[in-house]
This record gives sequence, structure tokens and C-alpha cells, in this order.
Amino acid sequence: MVSGQYKFKNIAIYSSLNDKRIVAIANHVIEVLTNLGIKCLFPSSSKVTKAISKRGIGDKTTIDKSDLVIAIGGDGTLLSSARNFGIHGIPVLGINLGNLGFLTDIAPSSITSDLKKVINGDFIEDKRIFLEAKLDGEKTTYKALNEIVLHSGSIAQMIEYDLFIDGDFVYRQRADGLIMSTPTGSTAYSLSGNGPIISPEVKAITLLPMFPHSLNARTLITGQEKEIKLRVNKKSKAFLSMDSHLKIGVDPKHDVLIKKAKGELTLIHPTDHNFFSSCRNKLGWSLGVPYKKS
Amino acid sequence: MVSGQYKFKNIAIYSSLNDKRIVAIANHVIEVLTNLGIKCLFPSSSKVTKAISKRGIGDKTTIDKSDLVIAIGGDGTLLSSARNFGIHGIPVLGINLGNLGFLTDIAPSSITSDLKKVINGDFIEDKRIFLEAKLDGEKTTYKALNEIVLHSGSIAQMIEYDLFIDGDFVYRQRADGLIMSTPTGSTAYSLSGNGPIISPEVKAITLLPMFPHSLNARTLITGQEKEIKLRVNKKSKAFLSMDSHLKIGVDPKHDVLIKKAKGELTLIHPTDHNFFSSCRNKLGWSLGVPYKKS
Amino acid sequence: MVSGQYKFKNIAIYSSLNDKRIVAIANHVIEVLTNLGIKCLFPSSSKVTKAISKRGIGDKTTIDKSDLVIAIGGDGTLLSSARNFGIHGIPVLGINLGNLGFLTDIAPSSITSDLKKVINGDFIEDKRIFLEAKLDGEKTTYKALNEIVLHSGSIAQMIEYDLFIDGDFVYRQRADGLIMSTPTGSTAYSLSGNGPIISPEVKAITLLPMFPHSLNARTLITGQEKEIKLRVNKKSKAFLSMDSHLKIGVDPKHDVLIKKAKGELTLIHPTDHNFFSSCRNKLGWSLGVPYKKS
Amino acid sequence: MVSGQYKFKNIAIYSSLNDKRIVAIANHVIEVLTNLGIKCLFPSSSKVTKAISKRGIGDKTTIDKSDLVIAIGGDGTLLSSARNFGIHGIPVLGINLGNLGFLTDIAPSSITSDLKKVINGDFIEDKRIFLEAKLDGEKTTYKALNEIVLHSGSIAQMIEYDLFIDGDFVYRQRADGLIMSTPTGSTAYSLSGNGPIISPEVKAITLLPMFPHSLNARTLITGQEKEIKLRVNKKSKAFLSMDSHLKIGVDPKHDVLIKKAKGELTLIHPTDHNFFSSCRNKLGWSLGVPYKKS
Repeated sequence: MVSGQYKFKNIAIYSSLNDKRIVAIANHVIEVLTNLGIKCLFPSSSKVTKAISKRGIGDKTTIDKSDLVIAIGGDGTLLSSARNFGIHGIPVLGINLGNLGFLTDIAPSSITSDLKKVINGDFIEDKRIFLEAKLDGEKTTYKALNEIVLHSGSIAQMIEYDLFIDGDFVYRQRADGLIMSTPTGSTAYSLSGNGPIISPEVKAITLLPMFPHSLNARTLITGQEKEIKLRVNKKSKAFLSMDSHLKIGVDPKHDVLIKKAKGELTLIHPTDHNFFSSCRNKLGWSLGVPYKKS
Repeated sequence: MVSGQYKFKNIAIYSSLNDKRIVAIANHVIEVLTNLGIKCLFPSSSKVTKAISKRGIGDKTTIDKSDLVIAIGGDGTLLSSARNFGIHGIPVLGINLGNLGFLTDIAPSSITSDLKKVINGDFIEDKRIFLEAKLDGEKTTYKALNEIVLHSGSIAQMIEYDLFIDGDFVYRQRADGLIMSTPTGSTAYSLSGNGPIISPEVKAITLLPMFPHSLNARTLITGQEKEIKLRVNKKSKAFLSMDSHLKIGVDPKHDVLIKKAKGELTLIHPTDHNFFSSCRNKLGWSLGVPYKKS
Repeated sequence: MVSGQYKFKNIAIYSSLNDKRIVAIANHVIEVLTNLGIKCLFPSSSKVTKAISKRGIGDKTTIDKSDLVIAIGGDGTLLSSARNFGIHGIPVLGINLGNLGFLTDIAPSSITSDLKKVINGDFIEDKRIFLEAKLDGEKTTYKALNEIVLHSGSIAQMIEYDLFIDGDFVYRQRADGLIMSTPTGSTAYSLSGNGPIISPEVKAITLLPMFPHSLNARTLITGQEKEIKLRVNKKSKAFLSMDSHLKIGVDPKHDVLIKKAKGELTLIHPTDHNFFSSCRNKLGWSLGVPYKKS
Repeated sequence: MVSGQYKFKNIAIYSSLNDKRIVAIANHVIEVLTNLGIKCLFPSSSKVTKAISKRGIGDKTTIDKSDLVIAIGGDGTLLSSARNFGIHGIPVLGINLGNLGFLTDIAPSSITSDLKKVINGDFIEDKRIFLEAKLDGEKTTYKALNEIVLHSGSIAQMIEYDLFIDGDFVYRQRADGLIMSTPTGSTAYSLSGNGPIISPEVKAITLLPMFPHSLNARTLITGQEKEIKLRVNKKSKAFLSMDSHLKIGVDPKHDVLIKKAKGELTLIHPTDHNFFSSCRNKLGWSLGVPYKKS
């Protein structure tokens, strides 16, 4: 997975948050990159741009001119940089605020050495799919890196829907909703619903019913090339949520169509990146077990 | 997935059971095949061979001479024909005893028409992987179509083991055991342990801890090309079970290595076969919902 | 549990629905009761009162004058009659629309014989608690027969709260919410969240976290005499829902206090009533198993 | 729950383990008790008796002569002292080896002060039930403080049984087994099977199916006064395990009868004992949350 051909010459600095720690990290990153002869770009949509007294550029310009986006913050900041830039083909590298994230894996303490290695072509590319939802007959599409949720808009309020996969009827279900998650999202909301952890290389979509009315409902895992169709019962009031970020109403007259989006996210990691190491850290697995890569 | 090039000219008839219904179905199958000019073969390892007064042949001869095995019975019979013949490249077709199985999907009532279609090249090929276990340093391998289980041999008896995937340490765990399941096995023992249902096209292996000691243990789904290594704590008495069929002791001095086996099972289905339809029937999903393929 | 001292002389007829079947059942009930010399009362709050051309009386009058309420419909109608009348000490008897409910167990086909027996004193009394919520420092209390849910008002939106039981700190949790359920509610929303089924005689309250952020969150079952206190984090926007019926906002400045309400519901059942029989019927347990009371 | 009438004058020192830490703690305990004028007794069944060069007495004598048993070790040692002495009415107090247990809550570092308080009558009594199993028609009974498990003796081997509660048929089930747990056992094996945590004051028995064959099987919680009857299918080979300690074969000709045993265990705790504090410590709930008893 290591590739030397990359040339990151123009790098955008992004955060969806603005606090002291992020300002400090951003300044550190700018210093390291400038010393390496890299040009830094500052999108106006980044909350840290003003705080470090930079003049912001539009997202469109950022996409046109950047070879890489450095996202500073938690997994939320990375999600938002993925939706803004990553989906358009710009690779994203995440710097955390001290706690290893599933997606943001460079620690503030190793910025200098890790960035040097990455700029020198010493990194791992990690491809992640987006899911894309649209209402049948409409043009607008909605993208999510973690999950798309069909739901009733309220706690303890059931909706009824029919699920089809590649046109085949799967089941009719009454539930508070249905979580449709990428492998990336398997460690997010789906995990809170007792869903399985899906390793990033598995080409799968998780369909997890939320508070299903029927005792024999189970989590279903289907292939990433499948098209999912949801037909909401005409009496049900339903919504779609993308990454807990965007929420739209669903008119039951239109089927909901969900599939893998065309663009992929390219995550850039240091070469010692390891998915299971993030799991152990974030999920508290085998605390204190003294193993290293063997 | 439909293919016309197949030519099933020599077909073995197999069952791991021997009862009246199977004798009747076997005789029916023989009549249909004979009328179609097919030669029927009768493995001695099939429980129905004697009951229908046929002279049995060895499994080796069956493998050499058969183009197809017809397994009559439940999913257990299909598992056993898969281990005996399917693993050696002979396609398997399942006839059930009246109840649709996940793997045996031709009903006794449609034998005549379904077999004719299949013999005429009108069928679906459905590839299923086997998992293969071996003890590090030893030669013998053990295969399973559903699942391989590492366990303590007893209820409520914990073992401790370290899990590695492609050499990377994943976690140290104490539990009654660990179920490692193929997508085929996701509707078997793994499902009883509240594991997800994995659609057959997903190239995944499910790792489901059994009665784990730690509250943050979760089901992990990894890619089929990964090598799983289990290092059992030297104080733990452990066993491996393959498809609840074969059980061997594990000497903790040897790591347990598990990966996808080289051979695959080719299941032959009528062209109207549908995985979700089996799920609805076997799992009681949406009873009475009047949908057809749309 | 059988008691002969009851004298049901004035009986209110109630439904929260109004459809043809209910009109037919209500007329049947009135006929049977009138023949038995019972006076029927018709609360205005009952949806069926107008449909059967009766003059409605207020709920207050209904409570003062009735010895029994007959609720016709599903478990929803019974919940609503319990909140309107049952909480004030009026026993409630449920007639279903053909499908055995957990709370409504007289079938339309056995109205004549079952009502006669009940009027003659041949019945079972089944006591059920209500939960009662109030905001600390305020007077208004909110009652629920099934469950009280603390939640964020939205799907995939976490709230943070501290749980105290009888003043002892239990845990700080981030989750979509917390279901606090009576044994009666254990077969309702809590069951959809994979909660246990609590037999009605167990004096317990179930605390089930909804999509908890932490992997080691578990369902906790506490005694009915305990006082539950929830202190919502000041940054969290939270709501309380009672029986999915009433929803109020929670000002984090006030702790939420939840305990068993003073009044109990008295359900009246035919003498062959059996909780497990309702479970088998509603939950699809052991379909077709030929056991009777032994 | 605090009682001053107790007079612990003769105290047995017990451990099911023998290691340096236990020897040190035992000597410390003996010193403290001797200074307080208490007579120490040393059962031969205690593994630490020889290691501290004491002359052992029989369990019968220990029961006759002791007012209290001090169990030193983990929850396993406490279980074993409960079975040996607690069931016969001798109160038990647990000293842990540095990690708070669910049942052993005095830390080695606070032995002097905690024991003084207890001897002076300043303690909490915490009553715990035992479950008792017998085969119908036989006399021998088997007791468990945590759980009784009906099982097949093997992993992934189903048994079929009918469950009756107070003579009422509940369900017919196929599963690897059934865990029947006390509230005390709700934080032990049942918890590994995703069972709820039952607060000690709740008078309940948890019935948790192990790897049930049916998707609509659920955990059922019933009252402690109920008699549970299990009728094992004649073709099933079944066993009963008590506290993972004793295992007996079940002849399907005899029903298995399980109920609350007559004797109770009296646990003695320091007055600052708190069940939820043990949960937080053992289960990793809300690490670092700065609450104290309020």
C-alpha cells in the first residue's frame, strides 16, 4: 500500500473546530510544511483559518489547488473534510489532539517526523467508500462516510419500510429506523447499536435495524456493489440522516436509493498505521497487553 | 452467474441420512436423471445407497467420475457432501425434504422440472469458501464450510488466547471460545450467538467471541484473504471444532492458523434461487408479505 | 389471586379507537352487561361513545361512578384507559380485537362467557405499577405504565447524564437515551432494544441505555422501591417521554426524579389467564408446541 | 441494614488459594483479630491453613464453632466459602487481594480499621440467595450462589428442553443450554452472555438461553419464589453445572427442579459498601468520574 509517486506540494489546513490546541497544532504544521518547501492553503470553511490570521479561499479553489488536506481535530473534523474535499479526490491526513482516533492517527507530538516522512513519499494510502442516497426520481444526492440512517425523526416512533437489495425483496420491517453503514462507520453509530466491527478492507455495507418491532430482525451485511432500496410505508413519516450531519425528509411516494458513491476517500497514514491498534486504543481492548507488530 | 457450458453427465446421489422420504426422493431423482440419459453414481459413504439396493463406489472414484453431486436432505447432508466431494471441485446441488434450507433449495415437488432445467444448463453457480485450520508446524489441515470454533471443550470454562490477523496483534481475550465463520456459516452457529447475517457475495470472515469475559469484546469482520493466527495461553486447555463435526485438541505450543482453503464449493441452484427468500423462510422474516422479485 | 368480594355494578366502556369492529364488540358487551343487570357508563373521552350513539360523561364522573372499565382494542387502548382511569383505582379489563395482547386477553368470541364469570366474581386480579417522573423542584408528575424514556429528541444525537439510585452515583453515560421500564413495559419498547422479559410478579425496574457510546454499558435492573435520579449534562438538550404518549422538555438545571407511583393498576383477567401464554402468542415462542397448563 | 447485635467472637480464616499475598493477609488478619480478643479458627479445607502453620479443624467443627468466616482472595474463594460455610448460616466477610471484587470488598490496606469496625458491630448485612437443583424423584440437592446451567456438555451441541414455571409451560427451546442465575450471578457468567445486571435487592432469577436455535428467544426474569422445571428431550444428553464447580449428568427420565434454597448467605460489608461502586470498578463504568456518595 506504500506509494512513492505522490507529490504533495500544496496542502490545505482544515479544522471544523477552533480552539487553542488546534491553533497551536496548525501553526506547528505550517512551520514544518513551510520548511519543507510546501505551500499551505487555508479554506474559509475551516474554523481555524481566521484564528491563525490567514486569508481564506473558497472550497472550490481549495479542491482545484490542493494535493492534500490536513484535518486537525477529532473524527468529526475528518468526516467534514472528507465531505468537503475528500469526496472530490483530495487525499486527507488526520492529526488528532492527543487521543488516537479511528481516522486521525498522527499525534501532535510526532507531527514533525511524521509529516516529513509523508512529504517524502513514505506513507500508506487507505481507501474508504462513501455511501450516497437519493430519492427515486430526484437528482440531488447525499453522501456519507460513516452511515446513512432512515428513521422516524423521533425516539420510540416506528416507521414501516420494505427493503430491497438489487431489486430483490428482503424484508418488511417496523422499527425506529435502519442504519446503513460503511466499514468506516462500523466503529461509529452502528457500534453503539451492537453492530460488528468491519475491517476497512471488507467490501461490505452493514444494515442494522434500530429497535425493531420483530424479535427475529438481525443485522445484515451485504456487498458494496449492491443497490439498496427502501420503500417507506405511506403512513410513515420518515427522514434520512447522513453522518448525523444532514437530515432530510422522505416523501414516501419516492423510494430511497442507496449505493456506494463514485468517489472514494483516500486517507493518508504514517507507515506504522494499524487499524487494530486504533481499535485497542479507542475500544479499550486488552489494555496493557504487551504486543507489538510481529 | 448463469452458465450454459456445464455438462452434467455423471451424477452422484448422496445423503447423510437414511429414511423413507429420502429413499422416495432418491428413486424419483434416479428416474428423472435416467430418462434424461444421465448416469447415476452411488457412493458407499451415502446412507441411502444400500437402502435403494445400489452397489456403492468409493469416495475417490466418486470424485473422479462425477460431474455433480446431488445431496438429498437438510443443510447437514449438504455440509457433509461439501466436505466429501465439493471441496475436491465437484459441484453440489441440494434437494430438501420439503422445507427450504439455506443450502438445499430444490423442493421434492419440483424435482422433475428443476432437474431438467439444470441438466439443460439453466442454473446459477454459487461459490462458497471453506475455512482451513492447521497447527503451526504440522501438516494436517482441517476444513469447514460453516465455521471453525476454538473453545475450551466445556461450558463456562474460559480459555485465553491472542488473536493476530496477517501478523498484526488484534487482542488478547478470555472467553469460552471464538467462532470463526464463513458467510455460509453466518446463518448457522454464529447466528445463535447473535452474529450478523453475511450475504454470500461478501468476502468476509466473522470472528465472534463466545461468552467473552470482557464487556467491550465485539464481533469483528475481516477480509477473506487474511490469515488468522490464534496463540492459546499455555495454561488453557483448548480444542478446535470444524462444522460441529470434527473436534481436535490444541497443544498451546503450536499456534492455530486459519485461512481460506484453496478449493471452493460450487453450489448449483435453479435460476429462481434467492438468498433473501431463504432468509425469510428460515428466519421467519416478514411472514406473509406479498412481494415477489421486482 | 381470585377474589369473590368484588361487585362490578357500574362498568365504563372505553376505547381509544373507533372502527367497525370496536362498535360491534361494544354493542355486544353492552348487551351482555345489561342482561346481567349491570349499568354501563360511557366516557366522552372514549372514541367509541359517539359511534354507538351514547351520551358521554366526563372522566371525573367516570372515575367516581365506575367499578370497572372495559377497554376494547389493543394494548394501546389499555395503556390509555390505565392512565385515565386505572391510575385512580378503577380496575381495568381488556377485550382484544381477535389477537391476544399482553394486556388485553379476552377474545371477542368469548365475551359472553368470560364477562359472566367476571361479573360473578370469578377472575384474577393482576397488579401493575406505574412509574412517575418529575423535575426536581417542580410539582407536576408524569405517569407511565410501560416506560419513561430520557432522550435527546433526535436519532443519533447523544446526551450525557449521571444516574443515581437512592442517592448513590451509578454511572455517567453518553447515549441516545435511557429507557426506564416497568415489568409491564418489558415486552414493549425495552424488548425492541434487546431488553429482558420481566415476569409481572418481579418487583423491578429495567434501565436500558439506548445506543450507548461506551461498549461496557449494560442493562441494569433495580428494585421498585428505589428512587432514580438523572442529572443531565448542562450542554445536553433532553426530553422525557412517557409511554411514547407524552413528551416534555428537560431543563438540565433540574434533576429528573423517577420512582414507582402511588397508585397501582388492577388488571382483571379470566381465571385461565397466563403470562407465558401471552408471550408464546405475541413473541412466536415454540409455535405449535402442544402443551397445556400442567 | 446496620445491626449492632452481632457478636463475632470466633472467626474462621479461609482461602481457596495459597500464595504469598494470602499468607501475608492471613497473618495480618490474625494479628488484628487476636488483639481484639477474637479467637481464630482454621478449617483444614482452607488452602492457607498449612501455609501459616496452623492445625486445621473439620468443616463441621468450623460450622459449629464459628460466628463468621473471613474469606481471603477473589470472588472464587468467596463462592467456595459460601458453599462450605455460608449456606449453613455462618456470615462471610471477604478480603480481596488489592482489586475490589463484587463479593470481596475489604482492601488489604484497610484491614485494621475495617475489621475493628465490623467487630464493634458497625457493618452492613447483605443477604444473598442460593439456587438449589434436584432431579425429580431423587433426594440429593445441588446448590449454587451464582448460577445453575443446564447444558449439552459440549460447545455447539444443542439440547432440547421444555421450561415450566410453577407448573405453567413457558417454552420449548433448542439451545446449547440455559443459564439460571441469581442476582449475585448476574455479574458473572450471565453477564458474559449479555445478560442484565441485577441489583442484589431484586428478588429475581434470570433465565438466559445459550446460543438458542430460535431468533426470538430472549432472556426471561422471573420471581425468586417460583419453581423452575426443565424437561429435557429424551434424545438430548444433558448436564447441570453449579457455579462452574460441580457438574452432574441429567437422565432425561427425571425432570430437573430448580428453586431458591432454604438457607441464605449473609455477606458482611463495611458500612461504606456500595454495589454500584463495585460495578464501576469491575466493569470499567465511567472511569475517572469524580462522584462520591451523595
